[in-house]
Amino acid sequence: MASKIDDLSRLCIHTATTNPLSLEEAVAAYADAGVPYITVWEHHLKPLGAKKAAKLIQDAGLKVASLCRGGFFVAAGAQARQDAINHNRHLIDAAAELGAPVLVLVCGADPDVEMPVARQQIADGIHALDKHAQERGVKLAIEPLHPMYADTRSAINTLDQANNLVMALDSKYIGVAVDVYHLWWDPFLRAEIKRATGTIFAFHVCDWRVPTRDLLNDRALMGAGCIPVRQIREWVEDTGFDGPIEVEIFSEEEWGKDQGRWIKRIKTAYMKSV
Amino acid sequence: MASKIDDLSRLCIHTATTNPLSLEEAVAAYADAGVPYITVWEHHLKPLGAKKAAKLIQDAGLKVASLCRGGFFVAAGAQARQDAINHNRHLIDAAAELGAPVLVLVCGADPDVEMPVARQQIADGIHALDKHAQERGVKLAIEPLHPMYADTRSAINTLDQANNLVMALDSKYIGVAVDVYHLWWDPFLRAEIKRATGTIFAFHVCDWRVPTRDLLNDRALMGAGCIPVRQIREWVEDTGFDGPIEVEIFSEEEWGKDQGRWIKRIKTAYMKSV
Repeated sequence: MASKIDDLSRLCIHTATTNPLSLEEAVAAYADAGVPYITVWEHHLKPLGAKKAAKLIQDAGLKVASLCRGGFFVAAGAQARQDAINHNRHLIDAAAELGAPVLVLVCGADPDVEMPVARQQIADGIHALDKHAQERGVKLAIEPLHPMYADTRSAINTLDQANNLVMALDSKYIGVAVDVYHLWWDPFLRAEIKRATGTIFAFHVCDWRVPTRDLLNDRALMGAGCIPVRQIREWVEDTGFDGPIEVEIFSEEEWGKDQGRWIKRIKTAYMKSV
Repeated sequence: MASKIDDLSRLCIHTATTNPLSLEEAVAAYADAGVPYITVWEHHLKPLGAKKAAKLIQDAGLKVASLCRGGFFVAAGAQARQDAINHNRHLIDAAAELGAPVLVLVCGADPDVEMPVARQQIADGIHALDKHAQERGVKLAIEPLHPMYADTRSAINTLDQANNLVMALDSKYIGVAVDVYHLWWDPFLRAEIKRATGTIFAFHVCDWRVPTRDLLNDRALMGAGCIPVRQIREWVEDTGFDGPIEVEIFSEEEWGKDQGRWIKRIKTAYMKSV
């Protein structure tokens, strides 16, 4: 088992984790708390724009881990699929301007598109972005999502599928995001993390609340659920991954409380349970 | 694609689908509606007992598809695991007395038991029941559950895992239950159904509501969600399966309405969308 983490040097918080805070408030709060990395969500970036956001973050001494989130390549109509690709090009530009080395992809799903078709649309969509991503120096991280999101969010639901896509698309700019929330249950997780060696572009942590009361926004703080977070971190680090460890927690319960105290609890849980 | 179903001869309803009805009420309602098969849930069986229930069902001209549900083999303590095995022995006896050819197994999971350990406890538990199941002539159907139930209900979350267990345990009395709700998202479902040829002991249908508002009791009627139910039925029937098609729908919304009209809607959806 991996040893305990002994400092905050790899800690990253997603702005969606402190969702009620504006980007300005989040940057100030993370910097105050000694959190070195930030992952910026699109809805938090929008009011300020990438250029101003980049300066704000740099001035505060923070580093950007990723921009969240592109993707959503699946649609019944050709125009909607092209619109999605165009929007992802803009997001790649925004990531480059923001100084985000990675754009995370939630690949998309649509109840009106059969799964094999959806998966082909995803492969086509990511392939269409590859050249632009290379030109802008932004890596694309395919994030497999929990199977409970296979209806409307992603038809890529296991790390096996994401790894297969990475191998098929064969680009140094296309890899995976490993999120313990989506993948912890998978009996082949250890093998698939090993197979992803060299192509893990992001690592997200949180926990699975028991019981989970909502499909979307009831994630738990690390250590407060049933996911073997440290075990999975060990597997990820065994591949050589030494990048930021990103705390991504969607929680209506926590969003309703004081966000400064929430960040303190995140830091404590990070040191104790990651 | 499989052709449409043209009669009700294979229709089965789970008593949990009409949960507010007692077993007596369910039997009368299914018989009135021309539903030939019933799958009995343990909490509906309990008030009457297996012997009286068997007579009631037989007198109404119904056939029993399965008894739901045994399993729950996972626990931190050895005594609790032994208690679970003993309880499953009683359930096998009850199934035999009821005339149920199959006992469905929800294998169990426990937030305090690591997944690899849980999976071994499940294998051990089912193996411990094999001889008794053979003696009583009751088949055991391992039902892989959706990964969103991996915390407390089942550490067997794909048909691949269930098939591997069936092969390892190597008994004519151990097979699988294929439930579209748990498995529809799996990119390897078709291959795994093929691999289960000859060992599919039960086939459950319902649909995945978009959006799903509750992790447990928000299943939809066939045709009212995004699962390709007919496609999956074709794959199951391609293996030679010609047993009952069991409608298992947990729905607080439907349970709150008139159950006679609900059964009518189930029959219509069965003919149209299965």
